[in-house]
Amino acid sequence: MSHEDQTRRRLRLGMVGGGPGAFIGGVHRIAARLDDHYELVAGAFASDPQRSQSAAADLHVEPDRAYPDYRSMAAGESRRVDGIDVVAIVTPNHLHFDIAKCFLEAGIHVICDKPMTTTLEDAEALAALVERSGRFFGLTHNYTGYSLVRQARDMVMAGELGDLRVVQVEYPQDWLATPLEASGVKQAEWRTDPQRSGPAGCLGDIGTHAYHLARFVTGLEVESLAADMHAFVAGRVLDDNVHMMLRFKGGARGMLWSSQVAPGNENGLKLRVYGSRGGLEWLQSDPNRLFHSPQGQQPRVLTRNGPGLNDAAMAAVRIPPGHPEGYLEAFAQLYSDFAERICALNEGREADPLTLSVPGVTDGVDGLRFITRALESSTAGGAWVTFSAGCHDAE
Amino acid sequence: MSHEDQTRRRLRLGMVGGGPGAFIGGVHRIAARLDDHYELVAGAFASDPQRSQSAAADLHVEPDRAYPDYRSMAAGESRRVDGIDVVAIVTPNHLHFDIAKCFLEAGIHVICDKPMTTTLEDAEALAALVERSGRFFGLTHNYTGYSLVRQARDMVMAGELGDLRVVQVEYPQDWLATPLEASGVKQAEWRTDPQRSGPAGCLGDIGTHAYHLARFVTGLEVESLAADMHAFVAGRVLDDNVHMMLRFKGGARGMLWSSQVAPGNENGLKLRVYGSRGGLEWLQSDPNRLFHSPQGQQPRVLTRNGPGLNDAAMAAVRIPPGHPEGYLEAFAQLYSDFAERICALNEGREADPLTLSVPGVTDGVDGLRFITRALESSTAGGAWVTFSAGCHDAE
Amino acid sequence: MSHEDQTRRRLRLGMVGGGPGAFIGGVHRIAARLDDHYELVAGAFASDPQRSQSAAADLHVEPDRAYPDYRSMAAGESRRVDGIDVVAIVTPNHLHFDIAKCFLEAGIHVICDKPMTTTLEDAEALAALVERSGRFFGLTHNYTGYSLVRQARDMVMAGELGDLRVVQVEYPQDWLATPLEASGVKQAEWRTDPQRSGPAGCLGDIGTHAYHLARFVTGLEVESLAADMHAFVAGRVLDDNVHMMLRFKGGARGMLWSSQVAPGNENGLKLRVYGSRGGLEWLQSDPNRLFHSPQGQQPRVLTRNGPGLNDAAMAAVRIPPGHPEGYLEAFAQLYSDFAERICALNEGREADPLTLSVPGVTDGVDGLRFITRALESSTAGGAWVTFSAGCHDAE
Amino acid sequence: MSHEDQTRRRLRLGMVGGGPGAFIGGVHRIAARLDDHYELVAGAFASDPQRSQSAAADLHVEPDRAYPDYRSMAAGESRRVDGIDVVAIVTPNHLHFDIAKCFLEAGIHVICDKPMTTTLEDAEALAALVERSGRFFGLTHNYTGYSLVRQARDMVMAGELGDLRVVQVEYPQDWLATPLEASGVKQAEWRTDPQRSGPAGCLGDIGTHAYHLARFVTGLEVESLAADMHAFVAGRVLDDNVHMMLRFKGGARGMLWSSQVAPGNENGLKLRVYGSRGGLEWLQSDPNRLFHSPQGQQPRVLTRNGPGLNDAAMAAVRIPPGHPEGYLEAFAQLYSDFAERICALNEGREADPLTLSVPGVTDGVDGLRFITRALESSTAGGAWVTFSAGCHDAE
Repeated sequence: MSHEDQTRRRLRLGMVGGGPGAFIGGVHRIAARLDDHYELVAGAFASDPQRSQSAAADLHVEPDRAYPDYRSMAAGESRRVDGIDVVAIVTPNHLHFDIAKCFLEAGIHVICDKPMTTTLEDAEALAALVERSGRFFGLTHNYTGYSLVRQARDMVMAGELGDLRVVQVEYPQDWLATPLEASGVKQAEWRTDPQRSGPAGCLGDIGTHAYHLARFVTGLEVESLAADMHAFVAGRVLDDNVHMMLRFKGGARGMLWSSQVAPGNENGLKLRVYGSRGGLEWLQSDPNRLFHSPQGQQPRVLTRNGPGLNDAAMAAVRIPPGHPEGYLEAFAQLYSDFAERICALNEGREADPLTLSVPGVTDGVDGLRFITRALESSTAGGAWVTFSAGCHDAE
Repeated sequence: MSHEDQTRRRLRLGMVGGGPGAFIGGVHRIAARLDDHYELVAGAFASDPQRSQSAAADLHVEPDRAYPDYRSMAAGESRRVDGIDVVAIVTPNHLHFDIAKCFLEAGIHVICDKPMTTTLEDAEALAALVERSGRFFGLTHNYTGYSLVRQARDMVMAGELGDLRVVQVEYPQDWLATPLEASGVKQAEWRTDPQRSGPAGCLGDIGTHAYHLARFVTGLEVESLAADMHAFVAGRVLDDNVHMMLRFKGGARGMLWSSQVAPGNENGLKLRVYGSRGGLEWLQSDPNRLFHSPQGQQPRVLTRNGPGLNDAAMAAVRIPPGHPEGYLEAFAQLYSDFAERICALNEGREADPLTLSVPGVTDGVDGLRFITRALESSTAGGAWVTFSAGCHDAE
Repeated sequence: MSHEDQTRRRLRLGMVGGGPGAFIGGVHRIAARLDDHYELVAGAFASDPQRSQSAAADLHVEPDRAYPDYRSMAAGESRRVDGIDVVAIVTPNHLHFDIAKCFLEAGIHVICDKPMTTTLEDAEALAALVERSGRFFGLTHNYTGYSLVRQARDMVMAGELGDLRVVQVEYPQDWLATPLEASGVKQAEWRTDPQRSGPAGCLGDIGTHAYHLARFVTGLEVESLAADMHAFVAGRVLDDNVHMMLRFKGGARGMLWSSQVAPGNENGLKLRVYGSRGGLEWLQSDPNRLFHSPQGQQPRVLTRNGPGLNDAAMAAVRIPPGHPEGYLEAFAQLYSDFAERICALNEGREADPLTLSVPGVTDGVDGLRFITRALESSTAGGAWVTFSAGCHDAE
Repeated sequence: MSHEDQTRRRLRLGMVGGGPGAFIGGVHRIAARLDDHYELVAGAFASDPQRSQSAAADLHVEPDRAYPDYRSMAAGESRRVDGIDVVAIVTPNHLHFDIAKCFLEAGIHVICDKPMTTTLEDAEALAALVERSGRFFGLTHNYTGYSLVRQARDMVMAGELGDLRVVQVEYPQDWLATPLEASGVKQAEWRTDPQRSGPAGCLGDIGTHAYHLARFVTGLEVESLAADMHAFVAGRVLDDNVHMMLRFKGGARGMLWSSQVAPGNENGLKLRVYGSRGGLEWLQSDPNRLFHSPQGQQPRVLTRNGPGLNDAAMAAVRIPPGHPEGYLEAFAQLYSDFAERICALNEGREADPLTLSVPGVTDGVDGLRFITRALESSTAGGAWVTFSAGCHDAE
C-alpha cells in the first residue's frame, strides 16, 4: 500500500464538468481519492450555476469554490494561496480545448479526458501551449493504468516477444445497438452528437482507447491505415462501428475493431500482440490475468501481483493476487502517477521513472491524428492513407 | 455515482492497527475513501508510538490525533467535539475484543475485521456489549459487498432456486504452501501464530469467509458439521487446510473447503448453490459475472450492472457493465452501507432497507460458533457435531 | 494417426446389451470403431430376441450371430473358428457379473462397463475368475483415456507436484434434478432402480468415476472415508447426491462430491491435485487443457498434443493441438489400449508399456470396495470408516 | 445414436492420398468410420506404388485394391460389381481437380478436401462437370459439421439476430511462426509451396475455412473486400498472415483474420455475428458451447444437446450434453450427411432436408473466388475489389 505515503501533501484538485447525470466525472473523483493523493476543493461542475452549487455541496466542496463557469474558476483559483494545483476536465469533448487552454494560461496543471480535442489542429495547438506553459498535462487513457498492461508493455520493450508482427485490438460495446440517444439518455445524446463529440462517434469514444492501448503496449507507430466506418442505427449521424487495417513502421500489421452495436459486449477491450518469439493477450473484462505464449512453449498465465512480474507492473498494484482490481484502480493509477509527476515538477526534481509513460499531450495529438486519418480513409471509401502526413497537417 | 451524495458530512474515522507492513489496514482506508463517506482523522496505527506517529504523517492524520495506544485514543477522541464517529479495528484477531469493548464503552461506533474474536465466549460477550451500547457494530465480511453476491442472495430469498439442496463453498489459496512464516513475512507470522490468530489458522482466516458467504447468500443455518483440519507444512501449529461436510436445517447439505496450501489458487473463493429449480455459481476472481442455471433451461450469465438485476445488486455498483469492479469496491460497499447505518442511528431514523443485511455482531458470534464447532469436530477425529449446542456454549 | 496400423487384424468384437434406447452401447461401438482395431460381428443386444435381431441388422451384424441371450452367444461364438475375440458388456450393472463369468469361462476376453458388479463379494469373485482364466479384463473407466489425464498421472508419478497433500474431485450432473424416472426415460429408470443399479445410485454411476480418476492420477490409496449420501428428489430410493471426505495413506486428504441434482452441471467431472511443489487442475468439459501451477511460478496451460507433454499423453492423441478431441476419443483410447493388451496376450508377448495402466479387474474390486465403504459410512450417519477392512470383507 | 442405423449397407469408400506422414487422410478415415456408414475398400494412398501397398495393408484394404495411381483406381473400381461408391480426395490441393474429374467421369461420387482447386477457372470447370455427371460432390469444410454451428445458422435464418450488421471471423494458428518448412516437416512443406498449395498459403489453408464458416452461418454474400496479406517468416513465398475487411450485400460489414504466425493460437477458429436483435459467438476450441446475447437481455449459454436447440443442431449430436464432442465428430457429421445424400441419389429419393446444407461444389467455387479476389486486392496494395466480377471471371 505504498501509494498512500508517496506524497506529503494531498494535491488540491478542481474539476470542470462532472455534475449530476455525468458518468466520467464521478470516475475521476473516485480515481483521485482512491490512493489519497488529491482532495477535491473546487469545481465548475455544470453549465448551470445552481446545479454546480448543488453538486459542490454533495461533493463536500465549499460554496465559495463552486464556480458558475470554468473561466471564473481559473481566475478565482489562481488568485488563492490555497488555489488548486491541478484541474480535471471531464466535459464533453468539444469543450476540452478551451478549458485546458484557460487553466494552462492560469498556470494550473491539467488532467484531461480523451479524446483531447475535436480537431487535429486544436490538438497541435494545445501541445504547443503545454510546451510553453511548463505545466503538466495528463490525458486519461485509463487502460494504461492496469498493472498487467504495463507488464505487457515492458515485456515487449524488453524484446520478450521478438520482432513484432501482428497486432489485433478491439473494443466492442453493445449499449448503442438501439437508438438510445432518442430516449433521453444523456450519455448517449452527447456521444452521438457531432456538435459535442466532434466528427467521430464510436471512433473517438472507444476506438481511440483501442488505438492508444496498442500504441502504448507495442510502441509501434502507424505508417498507413484503411478504415471502414459506418452508422448502423437508423438516423445516427456518427459512426457506431469501425473496421480498420493498420500497417506499422517496421513491418508489423494490425487490425482494429471498435463497435457500439455488438450485442453481448459490454466493454470488451482486448489486445493481442504477436511477435517472432511469442504472443500476449489481455482483456479488460478480465484484467488481472495476462496470457503469455512463448513460441513453442506452454502458455503462461501472469496474474496481477503474481510471480515473475516486472517493476512497472508491481508499481501498479494495491492488493494481493487473486483479489481482483478493476477499472477504478487502473484509473486511480493514472491519477497517482500524475500526482508524482506534478509533485516532481513542482519540486524541480526528476519524477519516478515508472511514471514517465503516462499518457500526455503527445498522445493526445497522436490520437487526433488517428481520428483524422481514419475519417479521411473512410470518407475515401476505405482507401489506404498515410498516417504521418496528410491533407490536414504537414509534419 | 449516487454513493457520493448519500451523506452530507463525511464521518470521522479512526483506526486501530494498520501501520507499516500491515495489509488489511490499507484496504480499510481505501474502502473508507472510495465512496467519500469518511475521512481518516485519528489512529493508533502501531504498538510502537513512534511508528504510529510516522504512519499518521503518511496518512495525513494530525500529530495530536496519532495515539500511542487504543485506550488513550478512545479516551482522547471521546473528549473532542470533533471526535471520531467510528473506529476501524484492523489488528490481529486476539486484540479485537478488548479494543471493540473499549470504543463501544466510549460511545463510539465500531467497524471490526473478522474473525470477530478468538473465542465464542468473547464473541457472545461482545454481542451483549453491543446490544447494551446502542452503537453500530459492522463486521467486514467484505465479500458480501459484491453486487452479484447480493443479487444471488435476493434470488435465493425470492425462491428463484426453489428448495435449496446442495451448497458447495470453497476458499483455496496457495501463499502458505511453503513455511513462509519462517522467513520473516509479517502477514504469515501472525496468521500462523495461535497467540495472535486464535486456535484456528486457515479456518479462521478464510474458512470463516467461505462459511459466512454461504450463510449470507442461502440464509441456511447449519444443523451439524464434520470437519477434517490439518497442517500440511512441517512445523506449522495451526491448520492450513480444512475439509468439512455440512448439514443444514431444512435438509440441504453442503461441503466447505478452505486451504492455504493449494498451488495455483490465489484467492479462489467460490460459491455454488443448487435448489430444486436452479443453480447459481459465483467466483471471487471473476466477480462481475454470476451464472444462473434454471433447471432445464439455458444457463444465463448475469453481469454486474447488466440486464435484469434486482435492487440489492443495483445499489452496489459504481460504473457501467463490462468495466470490472473488484475487491476494493466490494469492501467500499460495506463501508458505504455502514455509513448509512451509522448516520441513520445518529439521526434516529430508519436506515435504507438495502443496508440491513450488512454483517454485524450476530454474524461475528455465528462465525465463532462455526470455528468452535469445526475445532471440536476435527479434534474428535472428524466426527459430526451439532452446531447450535455444544460443550462450549449452552443455547 | 499411428493408431490405425498398430494391429494387423481387427479384433472380432461381440456385445451384450446396447440395443435400442441404450446409451452406453452406442458409445462402446463408436469407441471400438474409431481407431479401427475392432469389427463388431456378434451380439445379444436385447433381452427380447426379436429386438436383438433387429438391432443386429442395423449394426451390420449377420443374422446368425444375433443371439437371443448371452449364454447362447458365449456358446455359439466359442464354437466358431472365427468366433469373437472379446465381448463388450454394456448391460445394466446387476447383469455384469454373470455375463462376464460366462464369457471368461468360454475363454473369451472381456471388456466391461462400470461399476463392475453390484457387490464387493461378486467383484472379488470375478477378480479370482479373471486370474484363473488368463483372459484379459478391461473396465471402461473411460476418463482415463484422455491424453491430459495420462499427462497428469505421469507428472504426479514423476514427482512434479512433490508430496501430495490435497485431492479435490467432483462429478456434478443435473439430469436427475427432477423425477425423470417417473416419466418413462429408460436411462433414468434403471439407474434409479436398486434392482438393476445395485445399492448405490449416483455413487455407483458417477461417484465411482470420480473416485477412480483420483486414484488413477494420484496413485493414492484411501485409508478412511466419511460419506454423507442423500436422495433429494421425493420418492427416489437411491442416492442422488454424495458428499465425502477422504484420508489417504501417506497423509493426503481429499473431498469427493458427486451429484445428479446440481442444475447447470451437465457432466462436470473435475479433478484438482495439490502437492508441496505444485498443483494440477483438469475438467472433463474442457479436456484439451491441463492447468499446471508450479508453486511460486506462473501457471502453465498444457494443451493436448501441445509443447512439453510426456510419452503417455502423446500416445493418446489423434489430431493436432487446438482441434478438440472429446469423450468418444478418450473412450476409443481405452479400446485401442485394450486391443494392444489382448493382442499381446494372444501373441504371448509383452504389451506396450503405455497400455499397462488401463483399468482392469483390480480397479473394479477397488471401485466396489469404495461403494461398499461409502454406503457403510452413510448408513452410520456419515461416520468415518476404514477403507481396507470392514464388516463386508476381511482382507 | 440414431446415426448408426440410417443406412442399410455401408458405402464402399476409396481414398486418394492419405498415406504415411499425411494428416488429413487419417482424419477422413476416422470420420468415415465413426458413424459406421462407410467401409474403406480401395485406395491410391501414395504416389509411390510400394508405399501405397504398405498403407493399404495397415488399413485393412485388400492388396488387389491398393492402386499405384488414381487413374488405374478409377478404372479398376468402376469395373467391379463391388466397386467403390465414393472416393475421398485428400491429396495436396494442386491434384484435386484432375482426380475429381477422373472419378466423376467414371461415375463415382466424390468427397474432396478444400480448397477445391487452385484456380477459379478450375473450380468453375469442376462445377460444370459435377452438374453434368449427376454425381454427388461433397467438400469437407468440416467446421460446418459442428452441432452448434448448425444451431447458429438456423438461428440466423430464423431471424433471431434481426438484421445482420457485423461479422467478425478469425482463424489464428502458430505452427508456422518459425520456418518449419525448412526442417523437413511434410505438412509444412507442401502448404508453403505454391506448386502444391496454389497461390494462397494461409489464405487457402485456413482463411477459406473462416470465410466459409461465416458464409455458412450468416448466409451473407460478399460485395467487396480489401485484403492485406503478408509473409512474415523470412524466405517464405506464400502468405502466412491475412487481414481483410469485408462488405456484404445488404449492408453488413465484417473482418477476417487468418494467421499461421500467432503464438499461443493452436487452431483458434472463432466466429462472432451481430445483428439488430442479438449476437452469437462460437469458438472451435470450445465447440460445445454457443453464446447467445439477445440485445438488452442476459446472455445465454447454449450447450450441445442441451436445452432449447433446434432440429439442425439436434441431428448432429451423438452423446449427452457435457460430454465433449470435437473435431472428429464434426468431420464425421459431414461424412454421415454425405452418406445420406449419396444414398438418396442412388435410390432416387429426396434426401433428409437436414443434410441439404452440407458444403458442395458451389461452395468450392465460392471459396476459389474468395481466394482470387483476396489475392487481387492484396496485390493491389490492399485496395477494395468487387467480389462477384473481376479480371479472372465474368459473371
